[in-house]
Amino acid sequence: MALEFNVLNTTEAGGRRGRIHLPHRTVETPVFMPVGTLGTVKAVAQDVLENLGAEIILGNTYHLYLRPGHEAIRRMGGLHRFISWPRAMLTDSGGFQVFSLSALRKVTDEGVRFRSHLDGSSHFFTPEHSMDVQIALGADICMAFDECTEYPADRKRAEESLRLTLAWAQRSLDHFQAHRHEVPWHEELGGKTQSLFGIVQGGMYRDLRRESVERLVEMDFDGYAIGGLSVGEPRDLTLEMIAEVLPLLPADKPRYVMGVGYPDEIEMYARMGVDMMDCVLPTRAARHGLLFTSEGRLNIKGKKYAEDQGPPDPACECMVCQRYSRAYLRHLMHSGEALSATLNSIHNLAYYLGIMEHVRKSLHSDGGDS
Amino acid sequence: MALEFNVLNTTEAGGRRGRIHLPHRTVETPVFMPVGTLGTVKAVAQDVLENLGAEIILGNTYHLYLRPGHEAIRRMGGLHRFISWPRAMLTDSGGFQVFSLSALRKVTDEGVRFRSHLDGSSHFFTPEHSMDVQIALGADICMAFDECTEYPADRKRAEESLRLTLAWAQRSLDHFQAHRHEVPWHEELGGKTQSLFGIVQGGMYRDLRRESVERLVEMDFDGYAIGGLSVGEPRDLTLEMIAEVLPLLPADKPRYVMGVGYPDEIEMYARMGVDMMDCVLPTRAARHGLLFTSEGRLNIKGKKYAEDQGPPDPACECMVCQRYSRAYLRHLMHSGEALSATLNSIHNLAYYLGIMEHVRKSLHSDGGDS
Repeated sequence: MALEFNVLNTTEAGGRRGRIHLPHRTVETPVFMPVGTLGTVKAVAQDVLENLGAEIILGNTYHLYLRPGHEAIRRMGGLHRFISWPRAMLTDSGGFQVFSLSALRKVTDEGVRFRSHLDGSSHFFTPEHSMDVQIALGADICMAFDECTEYPADRKRAEESLRLTLAWAQRSLDHFQAHRHEVPWHEELGGKTQSLFGIVQGGMYRDLRRESVERLVEMDFDGYAIGGLSVGEPRDLTLEMIAEVLPLLPADKPRYVMGVGYPDEIEMYARMGVDMMDCVLPTRAARHGLLFTSEGRLNIKGKKYAEDQGPPDPACECMVCQRYSRAYLRHLMHSGEALSATLNSIHNLAYYLGIMEHVRKSLHSDGGDS
Repeated sequence: MALEFNVLNTTEAGGRRGRIHLPHRTVETPVFMPVGTLGTVKAVAQDVLENLGAEIILGNTYHLYLRPGHEAIRRMGGLHRFISWPRAMLTDSGGFQVFSLSALRKVTDEGVRFRSHLDGSSHFFTPEHSMDVQIALGADICMAFDECTEYPADRKRAEESLRLTLAWAQRSLDHFQAHRHEVPWHEELGGKTQSLFGIVQGGMYRDLRRESVERLVEMDFDGYAIGGLSVGEPRDLTLEMIAEVLPLLPADKPRYVMGVGYPDEIEMYARMGVDMMDCVLPTRAARHGLLFTSEGRLNIKGKKYAEDQGPPDPACECMVCQRYSRAYLRHLMHSGEALSATLNSIHNLAYYLGIMEHVRKSLHSDGGDS
């Protein structure tokens, strides 16, 4: 009743062309998932995301728990209905934001006490509570509550963090299995339920990463994420960890690398066998005027674009590149106009989603072993 | 070669169902024109404006002169091409913004010296310069350079202001006629040219308003605007001035009331015989969370909408009301999300444009005398 995952083709390099059947959408993989922190992919309306071909977007549990609150969203039928997004969604566990945004947090075996970055109010998150919040939000995929190990972390710290994350993973799974039928759309969708992914941690220690995988696979999650990357480590270390973990994960379950990356990274990881990725980079960079194009990165604020009537990316077929010039985008940015963030974000998302579409095609046609 | 105006029907109350043929679009009147200050209707993309049925939008000469500059826009083929808006446009003269936004302005018979509200740089606008800027921008309709009389103004001040505005109107017209062929799209559109409207001033003095009309009509503009309203005077005085002026204007030229107003006002003025109106109100109010609906004004910030799953306006068929709930719009506004301004603005513009569509239908079916 949770997800069904089909691998359509696997290349020699390990890249997989797949399909994840979720309650709200069948998602073609490898897939890039735009981040919709507070129930909106910043500055981009839902119909535009649909036209861009986004099949699954993220919501952040920490943010939505604080505003408007998971109980309110539950009463309104869940996140899909609340934000009017009929396709698939994934929520993170709240763990990463608790560690990166909140103040005065205190971690115990039981959970994390922290103060809201908004108003200083005190909150306590446990694995069980994270599951309750995520079940109320009702995304198609939930994530186990984990502790994200900071970088750098010494071995003792990484071991201790992994011990906590593994204990929380089991508690997340137990609570999720006991309550998954409480998702707001359970009856409406004929008894379908959410899926839960475990998160591989272990800092930058290969043996801890291996141990993490082994223990999580024993617990048997619906899919597996590699967390604790893109936390400041050099890129070759990110790659090393992904390369270490991927072959150990079960081939018949989706593999998700959280919070990556630049365009060349998401393409590389997809070709290595990563099925799902998410990142704020395309939209956050867009708001700062950084466009990703087939010709490289383009800072639209540059004076040299003041009268450049060419499209942002001559090779791009997105609605922004088909209609607007670099000069106009620069003008919008310089003038502080709201349309700037919108158009820049649409192009960057189109570029990211286009990379994945291209990779999917090439993974499908490459000789494979499945 | 300038505009052609057809009155299709006139009601007993004076309301006219008409059609203005402009170089970039035939516009059905009465029409409401969304304001696109800096070459963008704030937070709303051009394709969305097209889908909303906007046939003509405004650009502000003062703002575009300062950023990105009229010469840059001329080199890029004019404002239509620069912002990728293929339908009709109108630019104001810059006069109103010089008086309302700039600093240290000094008015002489020759023109106005002022400092930019952006960087304090010094600029000098004359009627001739305003025409040059507007011809470079290349909107379908330009406005004569006028002085907007503040409210309240004593009779002496209003007389002096009117004298200046009339002298500037003649100079605007002379310069425009000598240079209208310099518009960037002149050849591209087979020799078509822009049109120039005169602006009726005279403060709140009925005889000065009458004198203003008489003198402007002698000059023979392509259309006539009523300016100097919505500057802080009571609404019944606005109405009194419009009612005084309208019957004096030539029936075969478009009549434009600048900078009005609330939904009930634009409907009332349209039924009295005003053909064109513009106002920042629908978009500015939207950014502050104020929605105009068939049930009255709705402040979307209200706590009572926190879990209201109904559409912003149950009677509205716009893309916002068809897809999103009051609860979601409230959440976006409370969270400071960019999508808030976009969705609120789309609804308010749909509401304003819908009023005009409704009025046009009723003016067409009412018994008329033309």
